Amino acid sequence: MREAVREDWRRVLKLTSIDEAIKKLLESIEIKPRIEEVSVTESLHRVLAEDISSNQDIPPYDCACFEGYAIRSKDTLGASKDNPVKMKIVGKALPGLKEIPKIGEREAVFLVTGSPIPPGADALIKVEEVRLEQGHILIFREVKKMENVAIKGEDIKAGEVLLRAGHVIRPIDIGLLLGLGLSRVKVYAKPRFALLSIGKELYLKSLEKKELPPNNYAYVIKGLIEELGGSANILGILPDDVDVVKEAISSALKEYDVVITMGSCSIGINDTVPDAVNMLGKPGVIVHGLTLSPGKPAGFGVLRGKPIVMLPAHIVSAVAAFYVLCLPLLAAMTGRTIEKILPYVYAKLESDEEHWGTHRFLRAKVEDVNGEIIARPMHGGANVMATLVRANYFTIISPRTTVKKGDKVRFMALSLADVLPQ
Amino acid sequence: MREAVREDWRRVLKLTSIDEAIKKLLESIEIKPRIEEVSVTESLHRVLAEDISSNQDIPPYDCACFEGYAIRSKDTLGASKDNPVKMKIVGKALPGLKEIPKIGEREAVFLVTGSPIPPGADALIKVEEVRLEQGHILIFREVKKMENVAIKGEDIKAGEVLLRAGHVIRPIDIGLLLGLGLSRVKVYAKPRFALLSIGKELYLKSLEKKELPPNNYAYVIKGLIEELGGSANILGILPDDVDVVKEAISSALKEYDVVITMGSCSIGINDTVPDAVNMLGKPGVIVHGLTLSPGKPAGFGVLRGKPIVMLPAHIVSAVAAFYVLCLPLLAAMTGRTIEKILPYVYAKLESDEEHWGTHRFLRAKVEDVNGEIIARPMHGGANVMATLVRANYFTIISPRTTVKKGDKVRFMALSLADVLPQ
Repeated sequence: MREAVREDWRRVLKLTSIDEAIKKLLESIEIKPRIEEVSVTESLHRVLAEDISSNQDIPPYDCACFEGYAIRSKDTLGASKDNPVKMKIVGKALPGLKEIPKIGEREAVFLVTGSPIPPGADALIKVEEVRLEQGHILIFREVKKMENVAIKGEDIKAGEVLLRAGHVIRPIDIGLLLGLGLSRVKVYAKPRFALLSIGKELYLKSLEKKELPPNNYAYVIKGLIEELGGSANILGILPDDVDVVKEAISSALKEYDVVITMGSCSIGINDTVPDAVNMLGKPGVIVHGLTLSPGKPAGFGVLRGKPIVMLPAHIVSAVAAFYVLCLPLLAAMTGRTIEKILPYVYAKLESDEEHWGTHRFLRAKVEDVNGEIIARPMHGGANVMATLVRANYFTIISPRTTVKKGDKVRFMALSLADVLPQ
Repeated sequence: MREAVREDWRRVLKLTSIDEAIKKLLESIEIKPRIEEVSVTESLHRVLAEDISSNQDIPPYDCACFEGYAIRSKDTLGASKDNPVKMKIVGKALPGLKEIPKIGEREAVFLVTGSPIPPGADALIKVEEVRLEQGHILIFREVKKMENVAIKGEDIKAGEVLLRAGHVIRPIDIGLLLGLGLSRVKVYAKPRFALLSIGKELYLKSLEKKELPPNNYAYVIKGLIEELGGSANILGILPDDVDVVKEAISSALKEYDVVITMGSCSIGINDTVPDAVNMLGKPGVIVHGLTLSPGKPAGFGVLRGKPIVMLPAHIVSAVAAFYVLCLPLLAAMTGRTIEKILPYVYAKLESDEEHWGTHRFLRAKVEDVNGEIIARPMHGGANVMATLVRANYFTIISPRTTVKKGDKVRFMALSLADVLPQ
């Protein structure tokens, strides 16, 4: 509770533009992305930390696209239903076989998918198109040169970069990596976030030891971090006691890459987080106050090269400030840019939206209305969780920039699950 | 290997239109979605199996949007910087408090965010806007009626449905559920898929016991199932031996909701899966052959009310047939429609694309080119994994429907990670 604000609040809370804040944040911390090796089969949705290129042409030689018979296309000239050509089967060729039978005039070799095309042959006829007859096949049509033949390197060239560092591994990529003969792959370690909730009311509630976890907003931020490729631990709820908060931040800094505090970072006399951060060392608090509504009281400090992100207690403010400050951290720690992390759509605004003096965090329900993507803005205060529940996308409107009904605006998904048309 | 096709292949492989196949599939199986209860804090990305509605108005009473002082707005008439009004602080009101102090003329009560507005008050002035002076506050401007007051039920009305069954739980929903006082929530159990790879070459490779898992396509399908909300186990690689395949399918049916076979379902004499399914009982194979390119040899059977989906060995065919046959299964087993499962975009085609005699599974690289979403089709055979690696979206072109350069076409994401602008 802050029955009054601090005497010095105008000095304490200085609004910094969000671009400037992000720049200062990334400049002030030591970004040391950690890289680890994981099994390819366990790598789904991890962020690649190395370029993946092919060690070979794929296919490695001209080979069969289907099961069938390798032949010389010119031997089929004039073949038809009524006038089939007959070819002698002179062998089989399996992939990996060292000696491949050659073929000459009116000869055929049986191939499975992926078998090398034998010397002399220049086409393949599918097994279901021929008739077997005493060691021979009958072909009932003309076959084109290179028909059903995959040409060496046509799929992938040796040395070609197929996936780049920063790419999120998809199911098909796992197939590719295994196909390239890789069993392990280098990925960025998930950035580790610690979550501390601070506030007297929340703390008292938590002491009642209800079975229900009372710090529900921490679970929201935890979920967002996990969706964006980080890991997060909820370390609990603290009272507004500067020594307790100091101790908790200091201890979390030992184990985690980023410490997020939630609440107690505004300008009341009992808002302890900025003081705690400053008491722990230099540089301490670097930005306290953002040109962001909701989200103004947010900020960050730096200690031992690591960021302490201070999120406000109100849920909408916390989510807004999370996207502004934590997304660049997640990006930098996994070798990506923020533009590459959040799914977005272009949507047509359904109403005029005023700019404010600050950056405005605007939530919206984005929907497909008969093939047109429409954004219906949701208005509500910083503590109105329902707007975030009803919304699925957000945008940030710059100061002095009004957007009008009908404008095409870029909206970012509020959750990875929000890209589903649910 | 199938040095020849079966004598009866034209009888065995009958192309069924994909819509008809899906209809038959859903009619032939017993769909029994299983519902389970999980902890709300562990429910991220699970599919809700119940509607969630509010048990109360939120806020439950008119309450404070910020920390500050409840006052009577009319007492501030005429207040200004030079002519502040003075009010006596007569108490505090915290959320949950039973006795709320009343206020009269020129009186104020301190409130924290969420505190009920005391009887007599009709507005709140923020703590940072007042000056404290010996048990009084000074107010330097006029305050509007209901300013900074959240009205009972303005956020959520009691009984209002906030999330519906079939909704995928997002981080913000976890906050909402906890806020509603729920610690556990009903979700659909993940449909359990078994994956069996069948084929002589693959089997022989697996016997060489390299450290590398050779059945890489099974890992692709496993990843897709997991992204779409199912669970999948890779049960291994079998030779083209009808008894072995029969036994493996029969055993998998005991434990899993769906059995997927990969390979050995075409028309060669050694393609054992359809025979194995038919030998296991009635109805056995229901559809063998789809009007889908690539993907023609795919199909399904039903045994003991459960589906056995037969995917071809080639990767592009397997992925195409997976989307056609397995997506409706996943949807039906989690109370959803297929339209609600796959993220999609509308993209402008970069080239004319011919229709084929069948449904055509077209891969494309969908990109944002200066604010316009463009789809560049990727051509390549059924076994060309590189097209799937380079693509990020797909569409299915109907028979007898040509799409032209410049057409706006609906494309579905090939992976949940493909909705990222990577």
